[in-house]
Amino acid sequence: MALLDELERPTLLVNTEIARHNIAFMAEKARQQGVRFRPHFKTHQSAAVGEWFREAGVTAITVSSVDMAVYFADHGWNDITIAFPVNVRQLRTLNALSKRVSLGLLVESAKSVQFLQEQLEAVVDVWIKIDSGSGRTGLAWDQPAEVARLADGIQRSDVTRLRGLLTHAGHTYTAASREEICQRYQSSVNRMTDLQSDLWAGGYGLLEVSVGDTPGCTVCSDLGKVDEIRPGNFVFYDGQMLRLGVCTPQQVAAVLAVPVVALHPERNEVVVYGGAVHLSKDVIVDEGRPHYGYIVRLDGSGSWSAPLANARMARLSQEHGIIVMPTTEFSGLQVGDWLGVLPAHVCLTVAALGGYCTLDGSSITTYTPAGLA
Amino acid sequence: MALLDELERPTLLVNTEIARHNIAFMAEKARQQGVRFRPHFKTHQSAAVGEWFREAGVTAITVSSVDMAVYFADHGWNDITIAFPVNVRQLRTLNALSKRVSLGLLVESAKSVQFLQEQLEAVVDVWIKIDSGSGRTGLAWDQPAEVARLADGIQRSDVTRLRGLLTHAGHTYTAASREEICQRYQSSVNRMTDLQSDLWAGGYGLLEVSVGDTPGCTVCSDLGKVDEIRPGNFVFYDGQMLRLGVCTPQQVAAVLAVPVVALHPERNEVVVYGGAVHLSKDVIVDEGRPHYGYIVRLDGSGSWSAPLANARMARLSQEHGIIVMPTTEFSGLQVGDWLGVLPAHVCLTVAALGGYCTLDGSSITTYTPAGLA
Repeated sequence: MALLDELERPTLLVNTEIARHNIAFMAEKARQQGVRFRPHFKTHQSAAVGEWFREAGVTAITVSSVDMAVYFADHGWNDITIAFPVNVRQLRTLNALSKRVSLGLLVESAKSVQFLQEQLEAVVDVWIKIDSGSGRTGLAWDQPAEVARLADGIQRSDVTRLRGLLTHAGHTYTAASREEICQRYQSSVNRMTDLQSDLWAGGYGLLEVSVGDTPGCTVCSDLGKVDEIRPGNFVFYDGQMLRLGVCTPQQVAAVLAVPVVALHPERNEVVVYGGAVHLSKDVIVDEGRPHYGYIVRLDGSGSWSAPLANARMARLSQEHGIIVMPTTEFSGLQVGDWLGVLPAHVCLTVAALGGYCTLDGSSITTYTPAGLA
Repeated sequence: MALLDELERPTLLVNTEIARHNIAFMAEKARQQGVRFRPHFKTHQSAAVGEWFREAGVTAITVSSVDMAVYFADHGWNDITIAFPVNVRQLRTLNALSKRVSLGLLVESAKSVQFLQEQLEAVVDVWIKIDSGSGRTGLAWDQPAEVARLADGIQRSDVTRLRGLLTHAGHTYTAASREEICQRYQSSVNRMTDLQSDLWAGGYGLLEVSVGDTPGCTVCSDLGKVDEIRPGNFVFYDGQMLRLGVCTPQQVAAVLAVPVVALHPERNEVVVYGGAVHLSKDVIVDEGRPHYGYIVRLDGSGSWSAPLANARMARLSQEHGIIVMPTTEFSGLQVGDWLGVLPAHVCLTVAALGGYCTLDGSSITTYTPAGLA
């Protein structure tokens, strides 16, 4: 039976061939440039996809929460960086983790460092979170004295082993062109290596530099003098990456299949079962107008077309999606047919759905965050 | 031990006293006005909270998906309307459901009606979905001939029992004032009862009218000549309802507790563990500026303050939340402290988290949608 005939509800379809190709591309790029590849697993969130990375030679990973670290530790990963400022409320879990894997933690305040030094029962690697321009969080890249003060604090105890400086150049996601992505990536790297030099001169040793955002790591031909990269989104790519020109439609590995439930050709709208609880509500801004994803046609096997011109997921309620598309695309479309949505932000779609389906019909389950205390 | 000392990660706290009060208010209002109360369970999504409704005399419910209907049928509910256009892909499940509960389905096309008549093995109630002004989906309220044509089709078979006309006046959510909410609600009700009269005159019998949105049902003193109301959000209310003036801060029954992970007083920002995977990304638009929720202080027992003036959840990444608040509120705030967020749209937050916690520390699990085929 054709894959689409087996589906009943909104389902994220993953083309494993494309995803494995994306992994091989990034692993090879890192190898050629002599940087450690510590991919971020917050995008695919799955032990099964983790194995595809292992087959590509990956041994060290990045995650975005303590609970996600536990999930991947349970699936055989033993070198894990939690790329999120330490949540001191999860001390018990951090202590348990630190005894079973090589654990990297992010700090940006003396308070967090002091807490770790007083409470941790095993040695962890500590990375100082640096804000290299994105303005989200971290110590400012242009305040080396402040960074040095925190480094002093970290070195005060053997339980916190000062490993390096870590940043996420998230401002590459809002760049206007591939050239601007590279400029922002390179500027971020330069700020990090300048800071590394300052600390070297200050006697703190040669700290490692960790960077990594999918736009920069995909587009820039020279990854710069860094020790590791941590991109994540590239495994599937998504509508935002397509909009930015980071990837081609042929590199997007995941599509949300949605059944048509109503047709309104008089206003160019198709209503599908597929809403905010499936896609989440991140947006792509195209020519000043936000929308929730590009639209593709699916064939029976789940393979998908290039994005349809002028077709967008325009509005989302809890379960409804309203697709706006040209009347010409309505020809032959009926209630019960499938359409595909390239999500704006696939990491959130994966988190919302809790699993996906490969084109050969296999289910892949993902990490389920603990929602309760 | 105080509740907050037991929490480790972003957790939705529910004040059961407020929620039960909200339920009692709406049940009593429906009773006084002689309309059936068929609350929408897509907000709380929980069998446990369903019991609070049962204690308030509720026997009939609304859900937003076939799978949610199965969940509540499994928890003893036997009169369920799925307020979403029939997804013909879920025929097997619909057939199984139709044999065990009194099932109401929504249709708006001859194709869906024909499908049900050819495939259903037990009788269902059928509601014609009417667009009474919100522009999302349904047959237009001002096209009675089209509605009559669909009614004809429905009456062609005994398996589809024509029950009534159903609408969701979703445009009350974008009203500018309580007065405008009432105007839009009443206009929607009038359009529905006019259509009901047209169909009565056309010989289709006296069809029921089902309406129901939280803003209209909360604010309007006269619910009009309708047969049933289906509000859902009112059980908890949320930031959007607060912004609209539909509820007071004292009526909001749910808050997302988030631990502080970094402080940036120099730019009035607090970084918390609590991002798009916890809150989802629906927005409140306050004075032209979108944000993701109001900020409150929590005491050790989980009780919360009124919203802090000029404090907002300004930005969300996958796991990070960036709260902007006045420097004066920073006094005494430290890494590891808890803050509370009144979510923009609590239905999506519940769906994202998969559970919540009452102030006496009990965990409440919710319906988990099937993410896979």
